[in-house]
Amino acid sequence: MSETFLLGILGGMGPLATLDFQRRLLEATPAQSDQQQLPSVVWNVPQIADRQKALAGMGPSPLPQLIYGIKKLNEAGASHIAIPCNTAHHWYDALAEASDAPIVHIVDATLDALAKQVTRPQRVGIIATEGTLNAGWYQQKLAAHDIESLLPTADELREWFVPGCYAVKRGALREGGKLLGHQASALFARGAQKLVLACTEVPVALEAVRAPFLHLTYDPSQALAERCSSLWQAYQ
Amino acid sequence: MSETFLLGILGGMGPLATLDFQRRLLEATPAQSDQQQLPSVVWNVPQIADRQKALAGMGPSPLPQLIYGIKKLNEAGASHIAIPCNTAHHWYDALAEASDAPIVHIVDATLDALAKQVTRPQRVGIIATEGTLNAGWYQQKLAAHDIESLLPTADELREWFVPGCYAVKRGALREGGKLLGHQASALFARGAQKLVLACTEVPVALEAVRAPFLHLTYDPSQALAERCSSLWQAYQ
Repeated sequence: MSETFLLGILGGMGPLATLDFQRRLLEATPAQSDQQQLPSVVWNVPQIADRQKALAGMGPSPLPQLIYGIKKLNEAGASHIAIPCNTAHHWYDALAEASDAPIVHIVDATLDALAKQVTRPQRVGIIATEGTLNAGWYQQKLAAHDIESLLPTADELREWFVPGCYAVKRGALREGGKLLGHQASALFARGAQKLVLACTEVPVALEAVRAPFLHLTYDPSQALAERCSSLWQAYQ
Repeated sequence: MSETFLLGILGGMGPLATLDFQRRLLEATPAQSDQQQLPSVVWNVPQIADRQKALAGMGPSPLPQLIYGIKKLNEAGASHIAIPCNTAHHWYDALAEASDAPIVHIVDATLDALAKQVTRPQRVGIIATEGTLNAGWYQQKLAAHDIESLLPTADELREWFVPGCYAVKRGALREGGKLLGHQASALFARGAQKLVLACTEVPVALEAVRAPFLHLTYDPSQALAERCSSLWQAYQ
């Protein structure tokens, strides 16, 4: 860890989610001047193998490119690293090993934020890629808090989540928001009291359509931004 | 110039204007997937000496920090560099000399965009810092197109522009938009047919308050984003 605080952001997954994360960082930091805002260096290179396809066995692994980005951020002097993409955390251990700077884990940041709440839900729905769902991070950590997880079905993922997510990637936020809204409703209908928006494209789309259930969601991108902002505020 | 396209963005002046520029880059680039979006590395470190105070002789020069950022972007592999801050272009020559990658000049991008328009105004108002106004870039280039420049008075800068600009830097967009709206109205009242928003904080604030005269403005941040996006599209 270097002596100076500098947040390295491994972005590009997707580029819009990266911007959304940067905005949350700014908003999470009380600042009266430019100079009080969190310093960052952003590797926002979206020419990276598709994470969802790689985990479905239908494309090359993004790991070499992820490690390249991590190395670039370390070379630039990053003291901490954040990755505003849930699915990319599939490769967390390999990336942490390749990095001198500690990588703030998006799932830990989310569950720590959830654990601080006074009243906790009993059943939480998880909107995420198949890769994130198969990894089981959110389910395991929710179970440790005695919270039951509800997952999208394979049909729901195919009909709503996946096309919604790719709509965001091509800038069609309203279309994405509508599809992801269907996914959310299905989880509420099966008994979810709250939802974890565990793919960083999802809050971008749901906020664009002003989804009426946003107050019933946990946003890992927001939790990661608040954790990083706290680290910066503690450093000052 | 390296073989691979990578836009280095020297940001942090301010951090919100940097995000606004990144959003414009995304919107200027037709993309159906993450992979088609422009790759960038962003040095978004706002702990840099105040440019306005330095040029008023009331603070240290930001040049060493600007050169440091330029060197970091070159080390990261930038093939081109953009600086979404008009005032920082005061140090353009020194930065260009310190950079292997060419730096796209924000004033050139703006005037080239203006020159392409079918009907041109006769009188253009310039909303900018005293540093940018004293440098005279916009006035000289507008004169070369037979366009007269109208500048804010010292009183207007003190009452409206400077506090409006610093309001944006502390996140008070509505307050900033109101003050900058007064500055704009004063220039229109003196005969300006269009305005150049030659400080990257200005469009952020005017868009936040949905200023009714936005269709009568030229936005250097937008022109710079379009120029950079064109370079990327030509490269693909």
